[in-house]
Amino acid sequence: MFFEKVALVGVGLIGGSFGLALKEARRCGRVVGAGRSAANLEQARARGAIDAIETDAAAAVRGADLVLIGAPVAQFEKIFLAIGPGLRPECLVMDAGSTKRDVVAAARRALGARIGQFVPAHPIAGAEKSGAAAASAALFRGKRVVLTPLDENAPEAIERAAAAWGACGARVSRMAPEEHDSVFAAVSHLPHLLAYALVHGISERPDAARLFGYAAGGFRDFTRIASSHPEMWRDICMANSDRLLQELARFGAELENIGKILRDADAKALEKLFAEARAARERWLNGEFE
Amino acid sequence: MFFEKVALVGVGLIGGSFGLALKEARRCGRVVGAGRSAANLEQARARGAIDAIETDAAAAVRGADLVLIGAPVAQFEKIFLAIGPGLRPECLVMDAGSTKRDVVAAARRALGARIGQFVPAHPIAGAEKSGAAAASAALFRGKRVVLTPLDENAPEAIERAAAAWGACGARVSRMAPEEHDSVFAAVSHLPHLLAYALVHGISERPDAARLFGYAAGGFRDFTRIASSHPEMWRDICMANSDRLLQELARFGAELENIGKILRDADAKALEKLFAEARAARERWLNGEFE
Repeated sequence: MFFEKVALVGVGLIGGSFGLALKEARRCGRVVGAGRSAANLEQARARGAIDAIETDAAAAVRGADLVLIGAPVAQFEKIFLAIGPGLRPECLVMDAGSTKRDVVAAARRALGARIGQFVPAHPIAGAEKSGAAAASAALFRGKRVVLTPLDENAPEAIERAAAAWGACGARVSRMAPEEHDSVFAAVSHLPHLLAYALVHGISERPDAARLFGYAAGGFRDFTRIASSHPEMWRDICMANSDRLLQELARFGAELENIGKILRDADAKALEKLFAEARAARERWLNGEFE
Repeated sequence: MFFEKVALVGVGLIGGSFGLALKEARRCGRVVGAGRSAANLEQARARGAIDAIETDAAAAVRGADLVLIGAPVAQFEKIFLAIGPGLRPECLVMDAGSTKRDVVAAARRALGARIGQFVPAHPIAGAEKSGAAAASAALFRGKRVVLTPLDENAPEAIERAAAAWGACGARVSRMAPEEHDSVFAAVSHLPHLLAYALVHGISERPDAARLFGYAAGGFRDFTRIASSHPEMWRDICMANSDRLLQELARFGAELENIGKILRDADAKALEKLFAEARAARERWLNGEFE
């Protein structure tokens, strides 16, 4: 597997890392990039993630045999519309969006008969840092990438997509877009929302400075994901709002239960809950759920 | 400031680190320890956190000029009762509990006229690891220790307490027990509860293995504190349940607000909330609230 020309539409943390990783693995020729920030594109070129900067997405994908869209998901439909007419028939198009039902729907609307060229992908390798400056050839190493293939995808297209991510060091798995959005609402989107909510709630209090002044290491790690990219996470939460609201309701019920335990002063029940959580987390850390 | 004999009642992460740090700073002579687990005490001795193991707390404090109680807070009253009669009048007693109103009340009940010898302390230097095996002379370096002095404390007792923690490298500050419990309910106890709640909720679902299988770095950091000591955190949450319930209600209102934003598909409001949270966290990381 070798891609003569790779086009990155959006060259941030994910796009930039993908370019660096494919180059390091010697699986591509020329890599070009397009994006909204000229400064970020220059950064990407300086770091070697791309070889050239194109004026826009349509120009970037011309002649490409691999396209990766790494942008906030709300921009995808506009991007699909822009690149569709110029795609070579053998070009593989992937995205790196954190939601999948909305991305697939946008691709169907915008790509029309070219939909079979699009293999949806979600690399599980975020960071609270963003932009090409944070990109790294090692970002995907040992990380999961979830493909949510479409009925219209030829088996070879799916294989090429899996091979590209595999070349970046990722462990590739597959699921349906609906299942993807349910799973990640629970283990990713909700935790982000909770971290943002906690920091925001404290920041609005009159004694915020005093409270932050005593926040320590536990708070720092718990809220690390509240330093994530606001626009990106706005789009994810909006695109997956139905599943996220379900998770929010479920979590609210869990908190209701804990509130009752506290009001009842049921120390035994509280310790049991804490111990079960710790044990489950240990099993997870030990790789029992891989 | 030099302590000829230091007694550690409870030689876990905090007690063990205190012993190691005081020794490294050459501020103490002999350090003895008492605790519930013989294996842990042996570990503490092997690591040099204590010089000798005593059979119980009462034996340990005999002849001591400094006592640190580092145990789950629900055990404090029993410990105060055990050590009270044997305390030398010039002995300084401190605790390392994460709650303060309950600890002060227990000390008043159990120590009676000796209450002036007790200076309540809370080192903000937890870790999800526990036990003497995790202890380190560096644990308190650059970390905060909050003293909540009592009206009965002589100024010299408070100064000695501050000096002992200062010798361990900590930054010492003071507040009232009530204020302490409010502040830490918001920035420590609630985040712990939320992390435990998230992991517990997922662990009880029929598809728990699948969900954990796709949890990644953000989830790991968000839930790190859910690996904290269940008994210790049971005691903290129970001791501070009134303040914690207030924080839980406040957080519930914040989640209600976010739920409404999602249902209204108010992308602008959601991005604003995320951006404000991120900005507040950056200011905190930059040390603006120190």
